[in-house]
This record gives sequence, C-alpha cells and structure tokens, in this order.
Amino acid sequence: MGLNMVAAHAKWPEENDAIFGLAAKAKQAIDTYGKDNVIDSTLGALVDDDGNLICLDTVFNELKSLPNAQIAAYAQVAGQEDFLDAVQTACFKEYRPEAYIKAVATPGGTGAVRHAIWNYTNEGESILVCDWFWSPYVTISEEFGRKVTNFEFFNEKGEFNISSFKEKFEDLLKKQKRLVTVLNTPANNPTGYSLSDEEWDEVLNIAKENAKDPENKIILLVDVAYIDYAGVGSERRKFFSKFSNLPENIFVVIAYSMSKGYTMYGMRSGAAIGISSKEEIVNEFYYSCMHANRANWSNGTRGAMSVMTNIAKDPAKKKVYEEEVNKYKTMLRNRANAFVEGAKECGLDILPYRDGFFVSIPCDNAKEASAELIKENLFVVALKKGLRFAVCAVAEDKCRVAPAKIKKVLDNLK
Amino acid sequence: MGLNMVAAHAKWPEENDAIFGLAAKAKQAIDTYGKDNVIDSTLGALVDDDGNLICLDTVFNELKSLPNAQIAAYAQVAGQEDFLDAVQTACFKEYRPEAYIKAVATPGGTGAVRHAIWNYTNEGESILVCDWFWSPYVTISEEFGRKVTNFEFFNEKGEFNISSFKEKFEDLLKKQKRLVTVLNTPANNPTGYSLSDEEWDEVLNIAKENAKDPENKIILLVDVAYIDYAGVGSERRKFFSKFSNLPENIFVVIAYSMSKGYTMYGMRSGAAIGISSKEEIVNEFYYSCMHANRANWSNGTRGAMSVMTNIAKDPAKKKVYEEEVNKYKTMLRNRANAFVEGAKECGLDILPYRDGFFVSIPCDNAKEASAELIKENLFVVALKKGLRFAVCAVAEDKCRVAPAKIKKVLDNLK
Repeated sequence: MGLNMVAAHAKWPEENDAIFGLAAKAKQAIDTYGKDNVIDSTLGALVDDDGNLICLDTVFNELKSLPNAQIAAYAQVAGQEDFLDAVQTACFKEYRPEAYIKAVATPGGTGAVRHAIWNYTNEGESILVCDWFWSPYVTISEEFGRKVTNFEFFNEKGEFNISSFKEKFEDLLKKQKRLVTVLNTPANNPTGYSLSDEEWDEVLNIAKENAKDPENKIILLVDVAYIDYAGVGSERRKFFSKFSNLPENIFVVIAYSMSKGYTMYGMRSGAAIGISSKEEIVNEFYYSCMHANRANWSNGTRGAMSVMTNIAKDPAKKKVYEEEVNKYKTMLRNRANAFVEGAKECGLDILPYRDGFFVSIPCDNAKEASAELIKENLFVVALKKGLRFAVCAVAEDKCRVAPAKIKKVLDNLK
Repeated sequence: MGLNMVAAHAKWPEENDAIFGLAAKAKQAIDTYGKDNVIDSTLGALVDDDGNLICLDTVFNELKSLPNAQIAAYAQVAGQEDFLDAVQTACFKEYRPEAYIKAVATPGGTGAVRHAIWNYTNEGESILVCDWFWSPYVTISEEFGRKVTNFEFFNEKGEFNISSFKEKFEDLLKKQKRLVTVLNTPANNPTGYSLSDEEWDEVLNIAKENAKDPENKIILLVDVAYIDYAGVGSERRKFFSKFSNLPENIFVVIAYSMSKGYTMYGMRSGAAIGISSKEEIVNEFYYSCMHANRANWSNGTRGAMSVMTNIAKDPAKKKVYEEEVNKYKTMLRNRANAFVEGAKECGLDILPYRDGFFVSIPCDNAKEASAELIKENLFVVALKKGLRFAVCAVAEDKCRVAPAKIKKVLDNLK
C-alpha cells in the first residue's frame, strides 16, 4: 500500500465519475456517426432537440443585468433574507404548511442533503433510502461514516411499497431512536415516480404512529430537486400542506435546488428548509445549518440568490419566467410520454413514470446491457437494479424509438 | 432545555455573525452622521474611497460575456481541467515547486481549508494555528470535532515566534503523530504579517527535522487568500519554491481563493492545491478531495472557473486584468502606509504589517475598546487579543487619522 497521508476515514478509491466518462464516449460517437445516429441519454440536465443545454433566458438575462456588486459581494452566512423568503414561496407555492419554517441557503440541493445527514445523524447510524436512488446519498453517508439502508421502492404490482418502507423504518428507529429518511419525490431520480397524496398519507401515518414514543426522533428529508418539472400546475406540491401541525418529534427538511427549475446547475444554489410545529426546533435547525455553512463553504452564491429574488419580486418577470419553465415542462412531458408509449408498444418493462427527467428500466445485468447499448450508439446510465434513461436529454422522436432498441438488447442478454 | 432534534455534535449556540451585526451598525451611523464622519473598517472586502465595493471590470465583463451555457452547466466534480491548470499558474506564478501537484476546485478558500482539516485529521485531534487567526479555523475544527492549539505568532520583539511554533508543533506531533498546521501567509488575516523567506526556512527546517521519524505525518496548510495583494511584484510567492523535493511525509496543501484577487467573493470559487514529492500522495489527495466535493457541494461554480481560465488564456485580457489588480494593490498599500505612519506618529502600538487587507492593534480589552470606538463613529472588529482595522475598506485620509482616535480610546481605558 505504501505511505498514506490522508486520515483513514478520508481514503477513497481512485475512481472518476462514471457518468462523465460515459458522456464523453457519447460525444465521441456523435462526432463519428453524426448526432442523428446517436442517442445520448446520460447527463441529468435539460437539453434541447439539437443537444444544446437549455438555459432559461429570463434567468440569464436577469443574472447578466445585475449590478456587478450584487454578484461580487459576499452573501450572508445563512443566505440573504429576501432570498430565504423567496425560496420558501418558490418551493411551497400555495401549499405552505402551517408550521414554523426557516430556510438556509446551500450550494444546490446537495448542500441541503448533506446538512440534513450530517446534522441529524450520529456516526455509525443508518439513513433510510429506497432501493432506486441518486448515488450521492451513499457518497455523502460514507463520507461522514454513516450507513445507508434501503427499502424496496416498488412492490410486485409496481406500486409504492409501503410495507417495505414500514418494516425498514421501524427496524432502524427501534435500533437508533433517531432516523433520517430520504424521500426523493416528486419526479424521483432515477425512476420518475412521484408519491401520490394517498401514499404520502400512509408514510406520515407510519411516522406519526412511531412518534408516539417521545424518545423517537423522526427526520424526513424530502429532496424536491426536480419539483419544478412535476405535474401540470402546482398539484404535485399538495403534499407540502400535510406537514402542518406534525408531532414535535417529526422534523421535515426540504432540499430545494435552483439547478433544474432555474437551469442554474453550475451556479450552485439551493436551500435547506426546515419545518416543525415547534419554534425552537426550527431555530435549532437554522443555527445548526448556519454553523455548518460557515464551516464548509462560508456562504452561498450571491448572484444566484439575487436572480431568484428579483424574479419573485417583479410580477412581469415572474410571469415570463413561469411561461418559459412551462414551455420546457411540456416538452419534457411529451418526450416522457413518447418513451412510455414506445415501451408499451414493444413490451419493454419500465418503472411507473410520473414526472421529471428520468425513466428507469429494471434489469439484472445493467452494466452489460449498457455496454451492449453503446454498440447501438445508445448511451444510458447503468444502475444497480437497472438502466436510467434521461428523457431530459433526448428529443421526442428518439425517445419513441429508444425503448424498442433497449428491449432488443435486453432480450438478447437473457 | 426541551426537545432537541439535531444530533448532539451539531447543536450550536444561537449566535449570528458578529461582523455583519457591526457592519449594520456602521451603515446606520453613516445614514445618521454622513459618510465623511464615519470610519467603517469592519468588512473584509476591497472598497473604494466612496465606500463602494470594488468589482474588477475585467472580471465582470468576462463573466457577463460568457455564453449562458458556460455558466449554467455543471462543472466536473473536481473542477474543469483547464481551470485546474490555470489556478496553479495563478497561484504559483514563476515559483512553482518541483513536485507532484494536483488541484481540486472548492468554494472559495474556505472549502479548501475544510477539506484539509477534514481529510487530514481524525476526530479529537488538534490542528495548530497561531494566536492571531481567522476565526473560521475554529468554527471548522469544532464542526468536525477537532480542536485548535495556538502558538504565539510574535515574540516580545514583534518578530515571528519560531520557538513557540517549534514547541507546540513538536508537542502535538509527539502526541498525535499527525498534524495539520495552518499558516495564513502572506498578508495574514488579521495582522497583515507575511512570513519572510528566512522564517519559511526555519519553519521548514523544523518540519524536516521532525519528518525524520517516518511515523510522523506533517501537513502544512498554507492559506494564501490574500496573496494577490501581497508584495509589489511576485516576490511574496518565492516561498512556494521551497516546497520542492520535500520528504514524503511532509504534505503541503495550498488554500487558494478567487474571492479577493478576482473580487468574486460572492461567486464562491477557489482551489485546494496539493504538493508532494510522491505521486501517489497527490493522487490520494485528489481522490480524497473529489469524494469530499461530491459529498458536500457536488461541484464548483462553473462561471467563475471560466472567468479565470479565459483571462489566463488570453494575453491581452491577462495584461489588463493584472493592471487592474495592481492599481488596487497600490491603493491598498498607500492606505496601509498611511495607517502605519499614523500609528507611528501618535505612538499607537500595532503588529508588524507587511501586506494585505488588515492591520491589528494588540490590546487587553478589545470588546470594550470596540464599543467605545463606536461612540466615536469608528467601527473596528474586536478579536480576542486586539482590534482588527480593515485598511481594505477605508480611504487613505481616514486611515491616517484613525490610529490617533484608537490611541485615545485605548489610553482612556487603561
């Protein structure tokens, strides 16, 4: 092994990001075969039919017209006050829970997820995540010496698996008396699933039942990174109002991101929003996150905060911004519909898609399947339990034909 | 106490940032008494004589002329490759050490400091920092369950206290066998001190002597946040070349920030740069920081990286950028000279200033002194061991008269 200089807990395998590697291969294929002949469904960003990253005009016009000092200056450690108001409205819209609520600015949704896991768990404990998940939940947990337990996302009928959730939730809570559960909904990455309002009721009933033991500390971390592309109006935000008047030992943290809804992936802005029926619990959250902000990245990206605030404050700008987002939301839904219909036509088994950037195809040999699909110039990300197809990155006509190509490769591997 | 939801390690006092509070008071005084009658020396950012934040035109013209997609897109987890080259050149200039070197993008210098402390220490261990220090070193250490030991920065003659450094350094190393030492130089915050090349030799000789024990792991974290305002040419970078061919159990991490040199405080960009005589040690560093990037903030601010890279690549832009920085470097030096001369004239005892944004005045009762000075409409930050005067934020004529005002208040408190 030789000499190590890093502490043992910070020694990690010399691995580069697999998705970036795959995206580079896709780019190579496009250069060689022409973009009409390649389906690049790797990156999790909204791309137009010509393969160009979509950047909302309203957002970047606003950013570029900010006075320099509003980009240059340090933001406050917790975030600018007007941003911390605006981000709550952007997140909840008309479904703000009746509760004490405080927000803290973070770099994207990742910073909020990181704060929730670090601040609300102890070393060695497990967080609970479903078995179709965004892999950085594991990276974050491992980085901090935490573990990850999975519940099964779907039952045999392809519905949300509430009994698996209950079992794992109660197991861990019994053992730890403290549990952070991650729910990445609506528009789950990688499946595109969104919990229905009834499923949310079931989840909250289980949480409330377990909250009767006052020793239990129940933290629900709701990652809504893709919420701005979920549903048609704001109906996919209805579940937020269910966080009203919860027992005081149920604490909810929302991880909100500006990356997708404002197409500001590279500006690193978002927020952790804490919700409690008790004021001292949200204050505790606020100061805990503020300390963590200071200790990790000092403060957030000031210009990104101003963009959200300025758009929120100006009704005319807000209207144009919302129209622009909605245009792309419709584009995305058309692509997803094309993929889902294509899958139905050819008999490809996919997970139930509701909203968002991705569709997932369950299979046993995802790595092999991905490698075979590369030969067909179709690039998808291999997960543990299947393939992730990024409808956000692929034109509608290609979304329609991709399922049959995938089906053929999967059938050949059987 | 009532119910806690956060884990015990993440419970922090409900305190807001003291400097922001003081700055708000200063702003109030300016509104009441007029800006000619107030000296606001609170914030650590370069401000023009009228009290406006200085934003380099070359930097913000470049940012605002970037294609939207270059701001919108995710950066790679470790940072864009061309940025990781450019930032090394920006940091070392002609004094690049002969060594294996790798950089990772971080949000400002803070992210790099955080990575060095987290990745290179174990829980419960102490890092070593001098007794005039930037307080987030303590915030970061406490956040992660690490401790801070101070050595005395200056001896009775007002010189760098190498014997105090040696004593504490060897004490901790004996106990821990692993030690992260923070050296915030050149242009130390809060004193303005810069270690001379001879003092660097002394530090490195002590490190090398202790590196003879192969069990010792010696990490030097050099925080160069203010380096772009140090010295006249690049002579204050000469010490970098001393990191050539070090013993393999001495590892150097440079925390480089774009905040000051590019007046991009609010864009959160910088880098951790690792230096070792052994390739596997810098690779280990790189992958350890990449994992930590992914687990804390995912990736860095893409637009800020492009600004540095584009300026570095274009000789004409680079020339104009350097002229612009140098103009403000001269302005800053004139202000500091005025303060130092003013102090000499009235007999105010100050710490040896060499470079940078701040001058420090040692005193026993800093909080009381700061409160008294507020009554005189002079706003300075109280530290444990004295007052910090931000010459970066105060016009030259005010810098000249401030020392006498401070002297008077301190004399009255005796």
